[in-house]
Amino acid sequence: MPPETLTPERILEATEDVLRRFGPAKATVVDVARALGVSHGSVYRHFATKAALREAVTQRWLDRTHDALETFAADSAGDAAERLGQWLDGLFAAKRRKAIGDPEMFATFMVLAGENSDTVTRHIAHMTEQLGRILTDGAARGEFVLPASVPVTARAVWDATCRFHDPVYSAEWSDPAIDTAYAAARALVLRGLTGNGPATADGRADG
Amino acid sequence: MPPETLTPERILEATEDVLRRFGPAKATVVDVARALGVSHGSVYRHFATKAALREAVTQRWLDRTHDALETFAADSAGDAAERLGQWLDGLFAAKRRKAIGDPEMFATFMVLAGENSDTVTRHIAHMTEQLGRILTDGAARGEFVLPASVPVTARAVWDATCRFHDPVYSAEWSDPAIDTAYAAARALVLRGLTGNGPATADGRADG
Repeated sequence: MPPETLTPERILEATEDVLRRFGPAKATVVDVARALGVSHGSVYRHFATKAALREAVTQRWLDRTHDALETFAADSAGDAAERLGQWLDGLFAAKRRKAIGDPEMFATFMVLAGENSDTVTRHIAHMTEQLGRILTDGAARGEFVLPASVPVTARAVWDATCRFHDPVYSAEWSDPAIDTAYAAARALVLRGLTGNGPATADGRADG
Repeated sequence: MPPETLTPERILEATEDVLRRFGPAKATVVDVARALGVSHGSVYRHFATKAALREAVTQRWLDRTHDALETFAADSAGDAAERLGQWLDGLFAAKRRKAIGDPEMFATFMVLAGENSDTVTRHIAHMTEQLGRILTDGAARGEFVLPASVPVTARAVWDATCRFHDPVYSAEWSDPAIDTAYAAARALVLRGLTGNGPATADGRADG
């Protein structure tokens, strides 16, 4: 095969493979260069330091969730409550898939996220910006009455669902009771925005 | 001074002192006995093992929050939305006071809580039982429409406010923006229960 051009994307893919094989403590830039059949200088031309490379791979991993949910954020014509519900469902499903489907890689990225708190902060800003667009549309359509400004309410929705997306809770995501807990939290949040939203998650309270 | 009777309460107080002085890794039952001027056999008559003693001191620490909030849970004659708001305020205030006022002891108890997950589970069950009583009263008074059964909704309220009571977030509790975030989450949860609850936390959305 002719040698492919060395792109940032190829380097990041190789870095993910190397992290999977060696773990976050042992993976080095030399391992990444070796996996690509290039010198480590070639890697450094794209990522100035090992830290920059690790940050970029963390961002790429987090952005996958971000990109998948953009559909719901962008669909400004649809019912906002439905979009918000789908966005939250999509978020929980994506996080679960990562945590339960590939627990070793998930643990690796938890280490990287701990090293790159600015990247995580940016990720949360992206996510709440998406939420904010749905909230803005919902308020404009008269579906939502927001308890605070758009950014503050978006963060409140993010916070109110943290058990279902913050990796610190990932050990609970395979608990059989988690779906019931999620449905109730989702209904509580949606009703907090719509006032008269879906009446029940799994049946009205019996007092 | 005449020697006091050796009670479980005195042992637990001494254990807390010893943990404060030596930290969770180094504190031993012998240290506790020495602090009390008794033999370690006397301590073991009340707590069969070191693990049982550490579990009891963890429970006592967690129960302090539980006991302080019981007032709001028990006041069945009052406005339920107001009681729930006060209960949540009291919970966040108590957790913050512990985390910010005495960070070393807080860190110590985080280690102990990690060792005693059953104690933590029981604590959450106590807290959501208190929440459940407020929800039951609110539903009976026609103030609340619950999105799920009382226990499931109580857990949803607990989960929806986790950023403001779960110790994993304690580093964020001294952030100046946390009060705004808390007010919005609180309003979202209350409105999720009342439908027509307090309209805004800090001003209506501007779209």
